[in-house]
This record gives sequence, C-alpha cells and structure tokens, in this order.
Amino acid sequence: MPDAPRPVTMDKIVSLCKRRGFVFPGSEIYGGLANAWDYGPMGVELKRNVKEAWWRDVVRRREDVVGLEAAIMMNPAVWEASGHLAGFTDPLVECRACHHRFRADHVESSTCPDCGGELGDARQFNLMLKTFLGPVEDTASAVYMRPETAQGMFVNFLNVQTATRKKLPFGIAQIGKSFRNEITPGNFIFRTREFEQMEMEFFVQPGEDDEWHDYWIRERLDWYVRHGVREENLRLRPHDADELSHYSKATTDIEYLFPWGWAEMEGIANRTDFDLRQHSQHSGARLSYFDNDTNEHVTPYVIEPASGVDRAALAFLVDAYDEEEVGGEAAGAGAGETRVVLRLHPRIAPVQAAVLPLSRNARLTPLARDLFAGLVDDGRWRVEYDDAQSIGRRYRRFDEVGAPLCITVDFQSLDDNQVTIRDRDTLLQERVGIPDLSSALADRLG
Amino acid sequence: MPDAPRPVTMDKIVSLCKRRGFVFPGSEIYGGLANAWDYGPMGVELKRNVKEAWWRDVVRRREDVVGLEAAIMMNPAVWEASGHLAGFTDPLVECRACHHRFRADHVESSTCPDCGGELGDARQFNLMLKTFLGPVEDTASAVYMRPETAQGMFVNFLNVQTATRKKLPFGIAQIGKSFRNEITPGNFIFRTREFEQMEMEFFVQPGEDDEWHDYWIRERLDWYVRHGVREENLRLRPHDADELSHYSKATTDIEYLFPWGWAEMEGIANRTDFDLRQHSQHSGARLSYFDNDTNEHVTPYVIEPASGVDRAALAFLVDAYDEEEVGGEAAGAGAGETRVVLRLHPRIAPVQAAVLPLSRNARLTPLARDLFAGLVDDGRWRVEYDDAQSIGRRYRRFDEVGAPLCITVDFQSLDDNQVTIRDRDTLLQERVGIPDLSSALADRLG
Repeated sequence: MPDAPRPVTMDKIVSLCKRRGFVFPGSEIYGGLANAWDYGPMGVELKRNVKEAWWRDVVRRREDVVGLEAAIMMNPAVWEASGHLAGFTDPLVECRACHHRFRADHVESSTCPDCGGELGDARQFNLMLKTFLGPVEDTASAVYMRPETAQGMFVNFLNVQTATRKKLPFGIAQIGKSFRNEITPGNFIFRTREFEQMEMEFFVQPGEDDEWHDYWIRERLDWYVRHGVREENLRLRPHDADELSHYSKATTDIEYLFPWGWAEMEGIANRTDFDLRQHSQHSGARLSYFDNDTNEHVTPYVIEPASGVDRAALAFLVDAYDEEEVGGEAAGAGAGETRVVLRLHPRIAPVQAAVLPLSRNARLTPLARDLFAGLVDDGRWRVEYDDAQSIGRRYRRFDEVGAPLCITVDFQSLDDNQVTIRDRDTLLQERVGIPDLSSALADRLG
Repeated sequence: MPDAPRPVTMDKIVSLCKRRGFVFPGSEIYGGLANAWDYGPMGVELKRNVKEAWWRDVVRRREDVVGLEAAIMMNPAVWEASGHLAGFTDPLVECRACHHRFRADHVESSTCPDCGGELGDARQFNLMLKTFLGPVEDTASAVYMRPETAQGMFVNFLNVQTATRKKLPFGIAQIGKSFRNEITPGNFIFRTREFEQMEMEFFVQPGEDDEWHDYWIRERLDWYVRHGVREENLRLRPHDADELSHYSKATTDIEYLFPWGWAEMEGIANRTDFDLRQHSQHSGARLSYFDNDTNEHVTPYVIEPASGVDRAALAFLVDAYDEEEVGGEAAGAGAGETRVVLRLHPRIAPVQAAVLPLSRNARLTPLARDLFAGLVDDGRWRVEYDDAQSIGRRYRRFDEVGAPLCITVDFQSLDDNQVTIRDRDTLLQERVGIPDLSSALADRLG
C-alpha cells in the first residue's frame, strides 16, 4: 500500500458522479431499486470508452480472437450442463421470528441481526434470475437471465470455429449484461445484480494451458497499467485450492485497492476442458477441434480473462481522482483553493477536449464555433463546446470530468490566429496556431 | 415497389448468416430457444457498426443530444406510471380442449388451430417479462425486464438536465436491450423476445412539437439512405388515429421492404407531455423545465425516434444482398458462375479491407504481414489477413461478408512496391504504391 494517504473516498466519488452526470441512482424519483444505477451522459461515454479499449486490445488488434454476442436468455439445458442450476448458490439463513434472510457466511452469531430472533439452518439459494417465456407460467417455459456471458462462447464453439476456420490457439470474446441475484449488493457500482461483463474464452492445446494462463494474467494486468491505473494500486492474487470454482484448475484475480480495500476487478481462470466436455455430454454435439497436424480430435483447454465493465469504470474513476491546492487562472481556482481533477487516460476520458471562448462575445463566437465544428468533423475525439459562466468555472468543470485538454479562444486569437491549449494535469498553457490544432491534439492525446 | 425481382430471400440470408458467421441459432446444440439468435464474429462487428453509426449521428456529432445508459431493471412504479402494467397487453384465447393459447387477433375462427377444440374468451396477457429480486419470491420483490428503453430517459430527465444544464430543445439517447414476451416472434432477427433498441427522447417546447416531429422523420429516413439503404425499399407510414399508442399524438413508421413485405423498422412518435406528466404525478417529483426567458415552468413535449438494432442490421443485410453472373479472376468465379456479394456501406461492413498474399510464400508473406500490421496499427479500419486457399475463393469469401476492398500482394509487389486494390462492387483492380496505401483506403472508404 502507498504511504501517502489518497484523497479519494467513496462519498466523494458518488457525489462527483451524480453532480457531473457520470452515475445516477436508478429509478431515483421512485426511491430507487436495490443498488441499481444509471449511467448519465458522462458515465455512458466513459463506459463506452472502457469497452472500446478492451475490444480494441482483446479482439480487433489480434488475429487470434474473434467476437460474439449471444442472447442473454439461453436454453435452460445450458445451465444444467454448466453446473449453474445445481451449484451456483449462496447459503442463506432465515430468522424464525421476523423471517428476514441473510447470507450464512456473513452472520456471526445464531441470532438475527435485525430483531435478535433465532436463525434457522442454512439453505442453498440459487443466484440466477428466473423468468417465464411464452404465455403460460409453468416450469416448462422457465428460463434464466445468464449469470455469465462465458457459456455463450462454449455453446457456439463449433459454429464459430467452422465459420472462421481458426486454428488453436484462438479466442472468442463477448461484452454484455449478466445478472446475479446477489443477497448483498453494494459499494456503488462495484457489486450490482445487473452488471456488464467483458469475457474472453481462449482455446488452447492441452498442455499449453499453464503457459497461456501466465500470458493472459500478464497481458490483462498490463492493460490496466497502459490505460493509466497506477501499479501500486494493482495486485495479483492466486486463488487458494479451497476457493477455486468447480471448473477451475487455477485462477488468479487482478485486485484493485478501492477505498474500502483490495477487491477483485478481474479473474483469469484456467477452466480446463470442463465446459466443452460438459456441453458435449449434455448436448450430444462433439465439441472438439480436429488437429490437421496430428489427425486427432482434441478437446481444447480454456483460459478465461473475465472482467467487469462497471468495476473497471469504478477503478478508473477512483484511481484518477485527485485534489490539489493550487491558485491562479489556469487552475480555475483562487489562491489556496482546492481543485478536484480526474486524471483519466485520454482513451478513457469521456471528453477529450473542450472548446472555450473566453467569453460569450460576437467576435469570439464565430471563430470558436468554426474551430469546434472542425474538430467534430474530424471525428477522432469527443469535443464539447462551452461558453457559459467564467473561464475559471469552466476549467473546474472540465477538470472534474477528466477532459485532458481545454482549448481557449481569446481576443488575441482574432489577431494571431492562435489558441491556448491548457493541460489538465500540468496546468501548462501553450499557444498553438489554429491550422496546427488537429495535429497538436493528436500529439497530446495519442 | 421496384420492377426487377430482387435476388434476396430470407432462406438465402439465414444461410449466408450462418455460413459466414453473422448469426447463429441461439443455444443451437440444445435445440435452440424460441427464436433466440446469437451474433457470430461477423454479425457482432456489423451490429457494433450499426450502433456506432447511430450514436455518431444522433449523439456525438450533435450538441443538443446526450447519452444515457439506464439499468434494464427499474422500480416497478415506473411501469405503473407509464401505463405498461395495465395496458401493455395482447389479447389471448385458450383452447378448452388442449389448453394451447393463441393471439385472439391472429385466430380467424372460434375453433382451435391445433386440435379443433372450442376457444374460450379473449383475455389480456401482459407482454413484460417478470422476475424476482432478493431471496424471497413474493410480489414485494417482483420486477420487470424493461419493454422499452424510453422510460429510463423520462425518470432521469431532471438528473440529466441538472448535470448538463441543457436548454430546450435537447435530447437524451440510449442504446440497450429490451424484452417483450411476444406470443408470435418470427422472421429471423426481426421479431425476438430479447432485442436491442436505439431510442432518443427529444424534449421540445410545447407548440414546437409538430415541427420537430417532421424534422426527426426526415432525419431518420435520411440516415438509412446515407448508410446505403436504397430509397425505393423505404417508405413512411403515418399511423391511423385508431392504431396510435395511448401516449402518442402522432406516429410515423419508417418501413422497409423485407422479403416478406413492408414492415416497421423504426417509429417516430410525438409522445406529447404524457410521460413526464405521468411520472410527475406518480413520483411527486416536478419533472418540468424552467424557462429563463419567460420565467415559467414548462412540461416539455417529446419526439421519440425509436429504432431496433436487430431490425436495422437485418435491413442492411437484405438490402446489400446481391447475386450476379460474372466470370474471371477478379470475380473469383468461373465464367457464368454466380457471385454472391453484400454491397454494404463501408461504415456498416464488418470488414473494411482484406490483405491477401497471392499465395502462402516465404517471399510474399513478410511484405503482406508488414502491410497488414501497419493497417491494424492505423486503427481506422477493421482489416483481416487471409492466405488460405486460392485467391478466387478468398475473393468470394470477402464478397460474402461485404468487405469493400481486397488488397492483393503478388510477386510484382516485390519489385515495384505496389499492391492491387480490388473493388468489391465494380471488380476494378488498381495498382497502388504501398506508401500511398493508407490514403488510398481513406479515399475509398470515407
């Protein structure tokens, strides 16, 4: 753990997220709904950027990984084969007096935390959300909202391999919503019943699995660092043998130091050939790979990096949050005032640059508008235009949403055809010729 | 309707989609699940492109629209206020003999289509999917999977307006999954119980609503044409008074001529102030806008362009499908053979360019690989590398996934540092210097 105390707290993050339009409580005007959250205008762009960065590095820039988007609702036989129907459970205890229920492993005594009554024996409670398809509510039409995207890749293994003719090793990746009926959701967007996953199943020759497992642990850890998360706030935690999932030979979590402590952001599991074998047995389909070199059918092993979009977004926000005492015009604060700034990586930030005329003025506006339109047309960055309130207040606003650059158009611009680029982190201000603005942005934003 | 018969049929589309990895039957190895479909490697890129094109034109390039991503599961009070709990129903009749159920408006006689038995009276059947949150399955914890994304924008109206300080008119846009327990899903990915919507609620001054309604009808129709859908296959259909939804003052559908006939791809509705008023009444929150010019609170009217990602993807596929009798090397077909080609817009196509060494050869491979790596690094396009099978078969493969350009590296390339760019539609082949390749692609792909 770092020595200097970090300024970030969850209260500050939740408050900033609401104020600046990152995250709002779900259904807030109706009193909310059990830890559901809605992403606002800034949050949805941040989340899109997190997903885009993952898809870019895990799928698009690799020849050995292809994408997939399976339906959330799958045939219930999938969950029987995967083991989720029988084993995806939490132990619950119920109070004999008030009938409230609690996770057995979270209750420390045999009396109810709510009323002091006596607790009954622990029972297994399945975490999958159930619904009914078709007009009759009976068990024949019961389906489940998937608790993980992974099974979509396993049941489509043959279809994907046939259509793409990929050879081992290759991966199938998916981003999408999953649902778990968590008994105790919490910590803002960290643990919610509805959440978005980024999962990839990487199919390898048996025997090469340990090596690929190590590869993906390193690659995924690097990915967070490359996108600006500080190394001292990340660590790897291999699972002990007694905490491994039923399908896993080995799992290593990437943990992040959240304000409440270290917590899992991503797990990289060696799922062995468990899933393909289970689905082969239950479906009768032969889910194997024909190796042209050896003329043999093999059931590939699977390495799975499984991360959460919401958790990653929260880690990026927490890690980027900073406060500093600075004064002066560039800081947008008086002497000795505190500036709040999100030091987000340019690829993750919801806004890359803001175009700010010094004031709302008939001479400045056309130039600033023209420059803004050019950047929007360019299309490489998300750019905002803002001419309301003082320049200092606008700097503070764009610091709080993590915009790396502000482009200020002032009266001197009318004479010298230059604008000022203000750097969010260093607060340095540089004059740049308007014809060079696009390449100046490219240099600074990557 | 066009005079010449189109070569496309649904059978051909479904077959191509499976063969080339656009769309697979959901949970296929288990016999599927009631018209659920999974998007394969090509389909997921096509779908991403459809969503990206919509987000770009409806959100990112506009200053008057911001994004949102609300949770799928909302407080049930939302659906009471919106009218969905009471009114989002289909009339069903049940056979007294076999107990099968049918949509009352789809059954033409009073006897069962399955067994000939007598049908009972029609009853209303709610189309929302219900599930249960928390450990107790009782009505207190019943929640619904949203049947439309729109309500997320209405309940967040105040939060978004406060965080962004937007002035009327402004819009809130969202892309996300919705669920409807359709009695009769069908026509491939056209009508499914789980589907993805692209919806935007555009809040305007009352009295300016008719004008903005017209604006969005034109803008949305243009959007399909700009992305390559042929105008003769699109039409506008205003709803008759007796088919308007309970919240709508006027609705116009954008219909596409699918192989089975004209069908709705998108609806543009004038929802008036119905939703904001309903939620104000039910929640007690004042969902209005304070107009600084008049010093009055107004409840905005809402224009809603609501489109379906899956329907749009299907229309793009159907419209792009073509067959032609051509021969010769560039066509990748023998004389008189039929070439199947998807003439997709470059922004919609799942692959923009393929790098194809003439053969797998120790001298060609390094050059082709180098060139491919450069295009991947560039990052503007999705590029594939393929050196398997004959060049003709590879041309056919990339024609069938709609790749606008193939870049062929041959032995002459080793001498003159040029490659051949083959155009998917014209079949013209042009030699281009390798240093100019990136700008040649930009010229052709836009």
